[in-house]
Amino acid sequence: MIPGGAWVLGVDSGGSGFRVALGAVDDAARTAGGGTAGSGAAAAGPPVRTAAARSFDTPVPTGPGGIDAEWLLERLVPVARTLLAEAGADGRRPAAVAVGAAGMAGLGDRLRAVLPGALRDALGVRRLALASDAVTAYAGALGRAPGTVVAAGTGLVALGTDLLRWRRADGWGHLLGDCGGGAWIGRAGLEAALRAHDGRRGGSPGLLARAEALFGPVAGLPGQLYPRPDRAAVLASFAPEVARRAADDPVAADVLARAARHIAEAAAAVHPAGGVGDVALTGGLFRIGDPLLVPLRDELARRLPGARPVSAAGDPLSGALAIAAALAADAPALPREPGLLDTYGD
Amino acid sequence: MIPGGAWVLGVDSGGSGFRVALGAVDDAARTAGGGTAGSGAAAAGPPVRTAAARSFDTPVPTGPGGIDAEWLLERLVPVARTLLAEAGADGRRPAAVAVGAAGMAGLGDRLRAVLPGALRDALGVRRLALASDAVTAYAGALGRAPGTVVAAGTGLVALGTDLLRWRRADGWGHLLGDCGGGAWIGRAGLEAALRAHDGRRGGSPGLLARAEALFGPVAGLPGQLYPRPDRAAVLASFAPEVARRAADDPVAADVLARAARHIAEAAAAVHPAGGVGDVALTGGLFRIGDPLLVPLRDELARRLPGARPVSAAGDPLSGALAIAAALAADAPALPREPGLLDTYGD
Repeated sequence: MIPGGAWVLGVDSGGSGFRVALGAVDDAARTAGGGTAGSGAAAAGPPVRTAAARSFDTPVPTGPGGIDAEWLLERLVPVARTLLAEAGADGRRPAAVAVGAAGMAGLGDRLRAVLPGALRDALGVRRLALASDAVTAYAGALGRAPGTVVAAGTGLVALGTDLLRWRRADGWGHLLGDCGGGAWIGRAGLEAALRAHDGRRGGSPGLLARAEALFGPVAGLPGQLYPRPDRAAVLASFAPEVARRAADDPVAADVLARAARHIAEAAAAVHPAGGVGDVALTGGLFRIGDPLLVPLRDELARRLPGARPVSAAGDPLSGALAIAAALAADAPALPREPGLLDTYGD
Repeated sequence: MIPGGAWVLGVDSGGSGFRVALGAVDDAARTAGGGTAGSGAAAAGPPVRTAAARSFDTPVPTGPGGIDAEWLLERLVPVARTLLAEAGADGRRPAAVAVGAAGMAGLGDRLRAVLPGALRDALGVRRLALASDAVTAYAGALGRAPGTVVAAGTGLVALGTDLLRWRRADGWGHLLGDCGGGAWIGRAGLEAALRAHDGRRGGSPGLLARAEALFGPVAGLPGQLYPRPDRAAVLASFAPEVARRAADDPVAADVLARAARHIAEAAAAVHPAGGVGDVALTGGLFRIGDPLLVPLRDELARRLPGARPVSAAGDPLSGALAIAAALAADAPALPREPGLLDTYGD
């Protein structure tokens, strides 16, 4: 036990940037948390207070070896020292770190190989959790209760657990799936715009006008999109336009109706047997509001009649802090599973 | 007039590589071609015989400035000299060059800025045509007759003309369209495989088995796909698997039925008014055969009842040679239009 409480670090790395937070877990909370975790709607770990945080607008790059661990480390280590200094804990070491990252399962080999040793050497970190961003979203949204979280921003993944094992659906990225997510909706909206431009069936003149207002003449759109490393984010940037048009534009409304169907199908595939637990919707996509939420509630009522759709209690960054706090306090944790939630240390 | 005939170069640059051919246009043919072009089912230019050719498996890269003109030049100039030498025309200069490239309209600025001067300096070329790959496909498939060509490989574009102007549909690339093309079909097939893996509705266990046979466990698929520069080609490599499963797998058959609908919609959007002319299908995609062609013929009959579906007379590389031969001989040519068919020189 560290006298005066422990410091923990949480990282949330996604398609449009990454965030780092320093959390304070005090001794009393750790003891209480260790004692009470496992009860009904418990948090993912002992209570943790966010002491300081930083946001970065650049996503961690993905190269031939997967997510670039060295690039992340070069930024994470100095930021961790700055946050500790800001919190008046200069020179202290974090008791645990939890990193949630998009693509952790398929693209996280380098993180798993490099981070445990590098964070021990650079910051004296003895306990580390590497989690899929879906797991940190789950921890932030539902804590340590059974149910399902749909995390949707640029991408989309559904994750459910009965607290014994995880079930995951989608989260395959913008070329293989993420059906109903921000890039999916934006891409479908841009396709409808280009159909109108070409005179193909299924086009939306209204979405064409919005696409030209945002990106200029559509002839230049491929040249603007394909060379960029953040193609999925560019596609997702058009999703709010689709939502804004939905009330007056049947093509835009149909895109969102199809998105709602995909999202409910992903939730239904992972929800605990018997329909136990809530379905939490989390992530920036749901800020587009009713044009998506109204058809989504209908689809969820049809496919998961027993489940209650709820708002997320907290975000993935708070979920990362909660996982780190549980790790620091030896408190009961969410199920560990390679690629979804890996832990390292003593 | 060059005594003894003229040499012309054709280039066909696509998503999975590029090809270069040297063509011989003899004086008699040039005169005859110049005299007869414009008649009914005429070729795009005077008759031209392929003297030598080379294929390259690496696609011309696309960077922040669009299609990489310097990269192409570094390869094209020595190959042109080699082909001339092989044809016994060492030291001769090509009378005209035609380059057909995927993405020419949106990504061809650098080619248009660099190639006219560079090919004149390096090879003494005085006449150059820069064409969309759809235009070279049209020239190869239908020559100088009105109608529509659907060119489909990794991507898909439909191009129609009444010989006064062009109409183009799709060809927007794998993120914005190319609906019904190879990458589109392969992507839809892989999505169905991953739906089966996740337990989502709409999955195909048969396509999942094929995806795992080709790419290994699907958990590794994002890591194999996203870091690659040729993502669209990787997706398209799965299209033949979808076709092979279509007879026994309703999910695979539905992917191809939707592809057929998209293809016919693109053809219908560009076909000359009144239904005049043939619809030619060209490109590697159609080698997957009946699983796509049977539903496609049905869709074309429904949407373009007056048009006759035909096989292409020649490929896009022969179309590039025909355009170069017409340019060399001052013969009537297909309609010129910025981004589709630009010509340079005296």
